[in-house]
Amino acid sequence: MKYQIKGSALRNIPWEDRPEGEKGVIWRSPHNPIIPRDLLPTSNSIFNSAVVPYEGAYAGVFRCDNTNREMRIHSGRSKDGIHWDIDEKPITFQCDDPEIGLFQYAYDPRVCFIEDRYYVTWCNGYHGPTIGVAYTHDFKTFHQLENAFLPYNRNGVMFPRKINGKFAMLSRPSDTGHTPFGDIFYSESPDMVYWGKHRHVMGRRHAWESTKIGAGPVPIETSEGWLLIYHGVLTSCNGYVYSFGAALLDLDEPWKVLARGKAYLLSPQKQYELMGDVPNVTFPCAALVDSDTNRIAIYYGAADTSTAIAYGYVDDIIDHIRNNC
Amino acid sequence: MKYQIKGSALRNIPWEDRPEGEKGVIWRSPHNPIIPRDLLPTSNSIFNSAVVPYEGAYAGVFRCDNTNREMRIHSGRSKDGIHWDIDEKPITFQCDDPEIGLFQYAYDPRVCFIEDRYYVTWCNGYHGPTIGVAYTHDFKTFHQLENAFLPYNRNGVMFPRKINGKFAMLSRPSDTGHTPFGDIFYSESPDMVYWGKHRHVMGRRHAWESTKIGAGPVPIETSEGWLLIYHGVLTSCNGYVYSFGAALLDLDEPWKVLARGKAYLLSPQKQYELMGDVPNVTFPCAALVDSDTNRIAIYYGAADTSTAIAYGYVDDIIDHIRNNC
Amino acid sequence: MKYQIKGSALRNIPWEDRPEGEKGVIWRSPHNPIIPRDLLPTSNSIFNSAVVPYEGAYAGVFRCDNTNREMRIHSGRSKDGIHWDIDEKPITFQCDDPEIGLFQYAYDPRVCFIEDRYYVTWCNGYHGPTIGVAYTHDFKTFHQLENAFLPYNRNGVMFPRKINGKFAMLSRPSDTGHTPFGDIFYSESPDMVYWGKHRHVMGRRHAWESTKIGAGPVPIETSEGWLLIYHGVLTSCNGYVYSFGAALLDLDEPWKVLARGKAYLLSPQKQYELMGDVPNVTFPCAALVDSDTNRIAIYYGAADTSTAIAYGYVDDIIDHIRNNC
Amino acid sequence: MKYQIKGSALRNIPWEDRPEGEKGVIWRSPHNPIIPRDLLPTSNSIFNSAVVPYEGAYAGVFRCDNTNREMRIHSGRSKDGIHWDIDEKPITFQCDDPEIGLFQYAYDPRVCFIEDRYYVTWCNGYHGPTIGVAYTHDFKTFHQLENAFLPYNRNGVMFPRKINGKFAMLSRPSDTGHTPFGDIFYSESPDMVYWGKHRHVMGRRHAWESTKIGAGPVPIETSEGWLLIYHGVLTSCNGYVYSFGAALLDLDEPWKVLARGKAYLLSPQKQYELMGDVPNVTFPCAALVDSDTNRIAIYYGAADTSTAIAYGYVDDIIDHIRNNC
Amino acid sequence: MKYQIKGSALRNIPWEDRPEGEKGVIWRSPHNPIIPRDLLPTSNSIFNSAVVPYEGAYAGVFRCDNTNREMRIHSGRSKDGIHWDIDEKPITFQCDDPEIGLFQYAYDPRVCFIEDRYYVTWCNGYHGPTIGVAYTHDFKTFHQLENAFLPYNRNGVMFPRKINGKFAMLSRPSDTGHTPFGDIFYSESPDMVYWGKHRHVMGRRHAWESTKIGAGPVPIETSEGWLLIYHGVLTSCNGYVYSFGAALLDLDEPWKVLARGKAYLLSPQKQYELMGDVPNVTFPCAALVDSDTNRIAIYYGAADTSTAIAYGYVDDIIDHIRNNC
Amino acid sequence: MKYQIKGSALRNIPWEDRPEGEKGVIWRSPHNPIIPRDLLPTSNSIFNSAVVPYEGAYAGVFRCDNTNREMRIHSGRSKDGIHWDIDEKPITFQCDDPEIGLFQYAYDPRVCFIEDRYYVTWCNGYHGPTIGVAYTHDFKTFHQLENAFLPYNRNGVMFPRKINGKFAMLSRPSDTGHTPFGDIFYSESPDMVYWGKHRHVMGRRHAWESTKIGAGPVPIETSEGWLLIYHGVLTSCNGYVYSFGAALLDLDEPWKVLARGKAYLLSPQKQYELMGDVPNVTFPCAALVDSDTNRIAIYYGAADTSTAIAYGYVDDIIDHIRNNC
Repeated sequence: MKYQIKGSALRNIPWEDRPEGEKGVIWRSPHNPIIPRDLLPTSNSIFNSAVVPYEGAYAGVFRCDNTNREMRIHSGRSKDGIHWDIDEKPITFQCDDPEIGLFQYAYDPRVCFIEDRYYVTWCNGYHGPTIGVAYTHDFKTFHQLENAFLPYNRNGVMFPRKINGKFAMLSRPSDTGHTPFGDIFYSESPDMVYWGKHRHVMGRRHAWESTKIGAGPVPIETSEGWLLIYHGVLTSCNGYVYSFGAALLDLDEPWKVLARGKAYLLSPQKQYELMGDVPNVTFPCAALVDSDTNRIAIYYGAADTSTAIAYGYVDDIIDHIRNNC
Repeated sequence: MKYQIKGSALRNIPWEDRPEGEKGVIWRSPHNPIIPRDLLPTSNSIFNSAVVPYEGAYAGVFRCDNTNREMRIHSGRSKDGIHWDIDEKPITFQCDDPEIGLFQYAYDPRVCFIEDRYYVTWCNGYHGPTIGVAYTHDFKTFHQLENAFLPYNRNGVMFPRKINGKFAMLSRPSDTGHTPFGDIFYSESPDMVYWGKHRHVMGRRHAWESTKIGAGPVPIETSEGWLLIYHGVLTSCNGYVYSFGAALLDLDEPWKVLARGKAYLLSPQKQYELMGDVPNVTFPCAALVDSDTNRIAIYYGAADTSTAIAYGYVDDIIDHIRNNC
Repeated sequence: MKYQIKGSALRNIPWEDRPEGEKGVIWRSPHNPIIPRDLLPTSNSIFNSAVVPYEGAYAGVFRCDNTNREMRIHSGRSKDGIHWDIDEKPITFQCDDPEIGLFQYAYDPRVCFIEDRYYVTWCNGYHGPTIGVAYTHDFKTFHQLENAFLPYNRNGVMFPRKINGKFAMLSRPSDTGHTPFGDIFYSESPDMVYWGKHRHVMGRRHAWESTKIGAGPVPIETSEGWLLIYHGVLTSCNGYVYSFGAALLDLDEPWKVLARGKAYLLSPQKQYELMGDVPNVTFPCAALVDSDTNRIAIYYGAADTSTAIAYGYVDDIIDHIRNNC
Repeated sequence: MKYQIKGSALRNIPWEDRPEGEKGVIWRSPHNPIIPRDLLPTSNSIFNSAVVPYEGAYAGVFRCDNTNREMRIHSGRSKDGIHWDIDEKPITFQCDDPEIGLFQYAYDPRVCFIEDRYYVTWCNGYHGPTIGVAYTHDFKTFHQLENAFLPYNRNGVMFPRKINGKFAMLSRPSDTGHTPFGDIFYSESPDMVYWGKHRHVMGRRHAWESTKIGAGPVPIETSEGWLLIYHGVLTSCNGYVYSFGAALLDLDEPWKVLARGKAYLLSPQKQYELMGDVPNVTFPCAALVDSDTNRIAIYYGAADTSTAIAYGYVDDIIDHIRNNC
Repeated sequence: MKYQIKGSALRNIPWEDRPEGEKGVIWRSPHNPIIPRDLLPTSNSIFNSAVVPYEGAYAGVFRCDNTNREMRIHSGRSKDGIHWDIDEKPITFQCDDPEIGLFQYAYDPRVCFIEDRYYVTWCNGYHGPTIGVAYTHDFKTFHQLENAFLPYNRNGVMFPRKINGKFAMLSRPSDTGHTPFGDIFYSESPDMVYWGKHRHVMGRRHAWESTKIGAGPVPIETSEGWLLIYHGVLTSCNGYVYSFGAALLDLDEPWKVLARGKAYLLSPQKQYELMGDVPNVTFPCAALVDSDTNRIAIYYGAADTSTAIAYGYVDDIIDHIRNNC
Repeated sequence: MKYQIKGSALRNIPWEDRPEGEKGVIWRSPHNPIIPRDLLPTSNSIFNSAVVPYEGAYAGVFRCDNTNREMRIHSGRSKDGIHWDIDEKPITFQCDDPEIGLFQYAYDPRVCFIEDRYYVTWCNGYHGPTIGVAYTHDFKTFHQLENAFLPYNRNGVMFPRKINGKFAMLSRPSDTGHTPFGDIFYSESPDMVYWGKHRHVMGRRHAWESTKIGAGPVPIETSEGWLLIYHGVLTSCNGYVYSFGAALLDLDEPWKVLARGKAYLLSPQKQYELMGDVPNVTFPCAALVDSDTNRIAIYYGAADTSTAIAYGYVDDIIDHIRNNC
């Protein structure tokens, strides 16, 4: 291991070795999609979902659109991170203020453990998309907090520890529709209620991310900086293409980009990525890492339809970022 | 049978039993698409087509785009409703007035038996899309009548009997292009020439039909109301997704919606629905029902490319509508 | 008089002689706008309105948008056709069926005397714009009939007598918004309820009308055909420009265009036409003619804000159409 | 006086009595525009500006676009609120963090006195438009604080006192361009750095405000609630029309709308409002009130070109809101 | 005179001294518009036109849209450059090849004297807009050459002498409509038939020219470089605003920009510029200079409706460019 | 052989006989795609590429987008025209003028042998897309010439010999983005530097090519005229569909179309054409012909992802064009 991950070992991280002949920095599981669109009786699709280690196994929050095409998030459990039991009912949040608690939709969740609890952030329908926030201790009871920002916002992703004594979040300000623009910003909060000190982190740069970008999994703390895996969108004459790549952010001032890969890590190339409710989407929302081996398992939504997984080594990704700047 | 279909028995209705493990209200034929895109020597695609029982077997009118990508409708015959002989030449209509008879294109036909003849309605190119109307007794000679409405209109679908002494039709007023809006309206006529008493039936409501909706097969008269199967369109960031669902309309005042399913019955999920000239389209234009068994066979266009079939029971569909309101 | 108007003398037709040096076929009143935007206590604007001779004086139906910017039509009276008393309250229609009688908005009225009554047509908000129809004998009580067509339609203009035994109407099928296209169609009805035999009359042709066209005043019957004054729209880089011109339609088959002027009769050139709620609009909705002198007085909306009048001779307009074909 | 303004007397409030025959709730100065576009040597336009009482006279912050069409804000002074001395140079802000202090543009300022200082908020170019915040004691030295929100936002307007112990601001989340949507939201802050508890206040409702709305002057505290004057935009076929109206907000929970006028108070009708860099704009950014007389003087930008003033009585405006709900 | 114009004296250059209090680098004639829209019997508008000294007086080519709104160019003569006789009939070109000679429209001409003849360039309708080219010796007979470029192009402006032995032209590649982009390019030709060595000159930079730019009058050779006056377009929420500014190009390599003014020289501010067929347009197409006094008279189209003139000194314009870089 | 190809025998032309049951004029290789997207270590896709016979084997220029999604062209060699060695590094051009030699991107190359060398044309990023030109003798050293045209242009395709003593090129003028229009034009040059005598060749006509068209392979000289294979684009509600067809151009005046097929030759129907970076694209850039057998092998890009090949006989294609006019 060239680099050090600031985290725990995760011996039971889902893993499959690199297949023969595979050229990419990371590689897909041949069992993809690991979560099919119709795992639940009334699910239209299950994708753009987040998993974390939990009590020696795994827990997660899953985007499950139902056959009304309503967007909802569900809780789930797994022993191995591959085979999942997902609750048939969407999460219902504990919330004192119905103005906040009664929202219109929830999608694209992330889960982040900070100090003593798991924070869930998601795209929350409150007079437009914004960043919903809740926490749970047990993946059964979820306590909803104030929305972090004004609409219109998507892809709110927390950092796994306070930075300079403040909670920290990345997000991607948006518009009311299929937003044809989008940069990543950084914000901080003393209390998870009030947010400010907003900073621009990075905008569009390379062709594969020339329309918009957005943070993916919770950033991974390494000796080289925060490893940020993020999606980028190219607009072809037949629509959006969602790939994902990676960058390194400064540990103390994460709005400063230390290095940024020119090439994507993974783009839609498999049938389950190219075909589905939204063709040509690979959208990462979570990653597991094992600090003993620097292995990483990245969960990503495929074609806005199902959930897939890719494997790699954090070292290789960091080298990819640096060689490719 | 919980509910009663007001129609005849149809013993030779195409049928395949529900496959093991199939969760949907209706299910696809494993032999789909039953009509391939290139059944005719010069067909680019055959889809969005209509079939009816005819003389103990089946007849139909088929949308066959040729390799010029011209849109034309053709007549066809089948013994079993699955294997079809389609005329290589498009239908030519008998019509005294060349202003009407010489139209620019014809697509998305429906066929409806009323009293003594088969009425064909289709999207007809007369200075823009509108509803063409013709009748036939034998699927050989077709007599064209006046266009029902002014442009711009699509998805004109007749009711299989007069209502309150008048012919009745559903339609979906449109614009000149790929219409990003669309509600279903009801109109009536004393004589199949003059149309009026237009009423709004239903607009967009759920996510899967949030862009536009349009009537599908000829409504089916049941003890619970007119069973209307209709398509609905969602606009993803990569284009339109056509699913279909169902509703019940009042028997005497069909512009009054008695119940409407929240979830779709079927959405594009198979390769032949997700891939083709227009990805992500399932578009129903005809249904056969057997009043003895309440079986229903729904014909739908797949990806604007080929023709597929799905099976189910009218009882289940009505329950789906009601449970799901 | 070279040509004959099939109508009555109208000795008190509003009139001002052609000013010195005026080059146009028709000329504006120097007192324009004759109806200011704020004639009513709560009117935002009064424009696109229709007047007719009535009991030796004049009556009319006026588009009066209020300061909510709601679009409503009001009844009015005048002795001279220039100075108007307009009811402060909008017209309320007698109508048995609330589905029709309770509409959302009403604008751009036309008034047409046929046989024994005055028919009013207007753009009527019924799940989108369509053609509302009513009649009155006294401009006090108005009886609403069925909407003539399905949405989306605007500029419904009746012919002042039955043609081939049927009521006849021109209209301009539209979409739900600021419609960037639009041709004129002809429809007929045996009973003012059911409409059919739709025919295309004319589309866009010259630069000044290259975006869309729509019928203006009720067509004027002359020895040379129906004289149709119509608006045409050009799209500049800064928006729509509404001018108006004229054409002659066949008396018995009015969908056949006998001649059509290449040049406009009048385009926005005066401050009250170039500046207002919608700059660059001249929009005619009514014309008075005197068959003794062939004088014509054309009422037109100016900048969607106020009402103006222009004068001319029917002979000159017909010559303009023919010389200019 | 029917209602009570919670504020000070302002004897020298700019004032002109209602002209004869004026029908509106408020009326324009006949000397409009009071600040011409070219008051400064290199100003292209001066509009959308804010004034406050200051040391017995008046001070203000003015949007002055220069002949590069750069958007900048300038400080100014006036004895009577009508005749202004505006600094030729734009305001330069004291700011420790160049990431914040070096912004791209500044426009549409508001000024709000709270406790001991004057807060300036404006549309600030930081990787897109957002709400810039600064304070001054003397209109000479301005101290810039953190931007209140993430981009994209406009029309940030503070309340003139803390509410429930927190600073409070209205804003209008936007997109990167000419935003065709927009509702008013409420946010609060303990410290003018971190903002949260975002609440939706009101969206589009009436025709004159059917595209978007945004807060105008600093809300005025009255016995009946916070009096909010706000602009609303209608989209005609030739572009946006900016009018303004008023509403009453709950004193303690200002996101609750007590009453909202259906009609606008003022819309573009004068040449200086209808003609200029952006035709058809009346855009209020400040109001002066005299609690002794309930007189109000509203400053508004005209056609994005010059600055105009309108007069009225707070009582009449409140009655207008209530009668007109 | 600080700088030297490489050209002839022009003693009878149209001229009016700077008015009192005028702050701009250049100033308008108080007699503007000097050519009204209706100078010709059937002209809708006369604007975006070009004049040159000719035989001790002036000649020109004028864009005259007729009342069909057809775009045509006409020849004209004047003794003083202010009062013009314009031919009622459009120019007809001598051209052997009907493929080129029969074009669809002609607008926005420029005239440039080179060596022994006057070259006319204009926006020419040949399957889209491109640069038409012709020459004349006498402004009576015009010989049409090959179109310089492929469509789509506008604003082709020649240099008044060969550069490095080649004819040289600026142009602005475009699209088929109201082109929302546009940079200035340089091309050269050995023979006025074949063009190549295309070079990018300059793109959009400042706010007033942030949508597109295009060359205006024929560049003026000075001791400091080629003086290029060019229009720039800003897109407000209510459409395009056309101002004009200036730059200096290298004498030998004119695609190299020596200096470029940040501020516009003139923007739409007068009623005849703000109101008309296209509001908010000032569009220069010609300039006269007197090398004895360095006076310049700039002809510009106003609101795409009439023709106006502005005066100044070349020295001031060059200083404006340099001070303002 | 009914018709004569003016070219050489090519005995080793890639070839597979028509499969049983294949109905099309041409047929695909069952081994398609013959060049996979990831043939190179860092290629995202390899498509829209050009091959020519070279020294008894084959050489070519290939569009290889890398995993940054940068568009670059690479040189390659093959013995059989099916299995290719492609250089890992993009072509670097010899060019004296860095203004031309340092371009932004290169895509969609064509290769054309004329007289003594191979000319390469491609879409070249020089302040927008235009036609880059270079030549090579050995596919190792490439000499870049001036860009042929001003931006914005794509699909520049040379004729394989001088016509009337001039070099000749087809091209498709475009805009800056995904150009929703496009006709084919003809231009000529005496020297490969200056281009002119531009002529319109053909526009959009049939449904399959109703959005835009563009030349494909280098035209093939036959006894019946130049055989032009070209792509055409239809816009479905879910995006562009690229098919290709053929036409015959006059040998001496190639802008005159002798005959043009109504139907396409090939449209996207296979999974590798329907699924990929841009679904529904078949885009031909090269063809090999054998004048002994009239066999033709057409190389086309599939789904903007990989390279495929189709076979046929020139005789059949010419008959298809003529029968189908």
